[in-house]
Amino acid sequence: MEYLFADRTQRFSSSAVRDILAVIQQGDVISFAGGLPGEDFFPTQQLQIAYEKVFASGKSTLQYGVTEGYWPLRELLSERMKTKNIKCTPDAVLMTTGSQQAIDLFSRVMLSRGDIVLTDNPTYLAALQVFRSYEAEVYSVQSDALGMDPADLEMKIMRYHPKFIYVVPNFSNPDGKLWSLERRELLLELAQKYDVLILEDDPYGEIRFDPSAACPSLASLDQARSHVLYTSTFSKTVVPALRSGWITGPSPVMRMIAQAKQASDLHSSSLDQRALYFLLRDFNLDTHIRMLQTEYKKRMTMMRDFLIRLPGLRFVEPQGGMFIWVKAMDELDMTLLLTEAISHGVAYVPGAPFFVENPQNNTFRLNFTHSSPEILQLGMSRLASVITA
Amino acid sequence: MEYLFADRTQRFSSSAVRDILAVIQQGDVISFAGGLPGEDFFPTQQLQIAYEKVFASGKSTLQYGVTEGYWPLRELLSERMKTKNIKCTPDAVLMTTGSQQAIDLFSRVMLSRGDIVLTDNPTYLAALQVFRSYEAEVYSVQSDALGMDPADLEMKIMRYHPKFIYVVPNFSNPDGKLWSLERRELLLELAQKYDVLILEDDPYGEIRFDPSAACPSLASLDQARSHVLYTSTFSKTVVPALRSGWITGPSPVMRMIAQAKQASDLHSSSLDQRALYFLLRDFNLDTHIRMLQTEYKKRMTMMRDFLIRLPGLRFVEPQGGMFIWVKAMDELDMTLLLTEAISHGVAYVPGAPFFVENPQNNTFRLNFTHSSPEILQLGMSRLASVITA
Repeated sequence: MEYLFADRTQRFSSSAVRDILAVIQQGDVISFAGGLPGEDFFPTQQLQIAYEKVFASGKSTLQYGVTEGYWPLRELLSERMKTKNIKCTPDAVLMTTGSQQAIDLFSRVMLSRGDIVLTDNPTYLAALQVFRSYEAEVYSVQSDALGMDPADLEMKIMRYHPKFIYVVPNFSNPDGKLWSLERRELLLELAQKYDVLILEDDPYGEIRFDPSAACPSLASLDQARSHVLYTSTFSKTVVPALRSGWITGPSPVMRMIAQAKQASDLHSSSLDQRALYFLLRDFNLDTHIRMLQTEYKKRMTMMRDFLIRLPGLRFVEPQGGMFIWVKAMDELDMTLLLTEAISHGVAYVPGAPFFVENPQNNTFRLNFTHSSPEILQLGMSRLASVITA
Repeated sequence: MEYLFADRTQRFSSSAVRDILAVIQQGDVISFAGGLPGEDFFPTQQLQIAYEKVFASGKSTLQYGVTEGYWPLRELLSERMKTKNIKCTPDAVLMTTGSQQAIDLFSRVMLSRGDIVLTDNPTYLAALQVFRSYEAEVYSVQSDALGMDPADLEMKIMRYHPKFIYVVPNFSNPDGKLWSLERRELLLELAQKYDVLILEDDPYGEIRFDPSAACPSLASLDQARSHVLYTSTFSKTVVPALRSGWITGPSPVMRMIAQAKQASDLHSSSLDQRALYFLLRDFNLDTHIRMLQTEYKKRMTMMRDFLIRLPGLRFVEPQGGMFIWVKAMDELDMTLLLTEAISHGVAYVPGAPFFVENPQNNTFRLNFTHSSPEILQLGMSRLASVITA
């Protein structure tokens, strides 16, 4: 039979790059493509102990739970956010299956067909996929190394009346950018002036190489807690398999998100939420994060030193996160080059799909957190032979 | 500020009953309201062993996984479905966060605003919420104790051109109905004749009190695997906290569902999926299910014997599942009576919200699986004092 899908499926994008990258899982290819944290640093033993505590807590632990999430975990998260100056009560925290689900649920309650979202350019690909899957239009704001250009932002807010502005101000995906405080303040000011919501996606904020460099979140600057939805995740700081993210924001929006969450899946895994609770309660996650900062900086430095020696490449050294964003010689099409790179045993993500408009085909994204130093060296040698061929 | 939500949120239903029932979690109220399995029967120890095996499988276990789910688990599920005569390859199985997410993802890829879904009346409330959240219209088909009336079904297919027909043929929620084989065959025949998809929701199929009574699923009757999407869950047979459901159906639909799943949450918890894999591999789930069948039948019988003695109540004794669906005297409004019942220390779910149209206010749903025999007796005595007052 012929299957007649919903209109929105016409906006679903099947990524050719994703298909290519799916293939390499099997082979002997060194991949700098995925946004994967380093497995060497997973707190496996502590996590196992946390699960033992879950099973020691009685059978009711395994029953259905509350849509918004496990209350003691939401309490801990609320305390944790207060240490980052984000005002937040536990009932304004909702647990999600990774921060991807937070992006999806917020979009689901905000976006009707034809609504507008403003973003950076380039920006997180899977967020673009979500916005488009709700038949929204995405427009990008001009930006430089410090963040969005306030004049262009204000002009586009006035022209497009966007439903919200999506930003990743800390070590953004793909380009690793860290917004300046001034640009953050100006963005928030404009959002408040024109009553536009901001979705602040902060998966990488804790992976910063200079922990003393202060960088307040938009949510912490939004004293009234009226204009910023803030989402983050433990996928990068604990382990991805837990699929534990959260979102917090103004109560009327959070109530609507809870209804969308109930329809979506009733609630996220209670076992994982309770294990995360015990982990946060009994394990010093901040010490663990400081170790990640140190180790990931070493890997970034090693990759940087390799890139510097290659002719024709330009990049800004990231101050945190998981990626180096590289521009190759203008004449190189990094999407076309991917097949050749894979035949040389190395993979990256071409930059073009991350662009909302005016894709730069000579860009690509390298992940430095996943590979051990030995593998990283070997992979970069392979990449060098492809780029300089 | 004023929050301008998406059009679809106008269809979100905030349930007054849900709010009342949320309150009773704290108190000394015996609840027959939730669709909760019995905690006494949870295979806690075996599940804990399964998690130990997950942690013994190495660190890559805790990394990001594949959107469609953990391949060895999908292989086991495909084998398990073959024993129930459902033709199914592992790549046509997608793991979801409970079968609620399967209903949501399928709706997301099928329903545009104004599309039609046909259902039983009454039917599963949270499925109705999903269909309406995608701005679809829901119409009900007339039915009796054996299933939908084929004449009314054909007439409504011709009149409404529905996107799909949603059914729970095994011990449906709320009314515990078991469809006859003939009605299943007629439904499938009409679906094939008019090229309409069926969403077969089967959370309770394995909780049957006479295991020898054959009751083939629609998916098993659909030899070409072209018209039926089948979803089920381990929430009732293992534990709800795992949030592990799955969906299987025609490849073109499954490919679209995988794209929706990727946008929704990338993938469900890998830890839970791998634990479920070890549990299915090393634990005799079918023996466990036979125990559940026996124990749940005892509880149903006890509740039935109580109900029989109460004047003015009518119900059909269920042959499986988790619920007894009761009609009280015509003049009783069970929604109004709920507050009084709670003040007497007992709760149920009023039937009215489960109706697509023509709500019967004198109906209510009782869960018999969650309460121990002692609690069940006490709760039913309290209910008797409310009903007969």
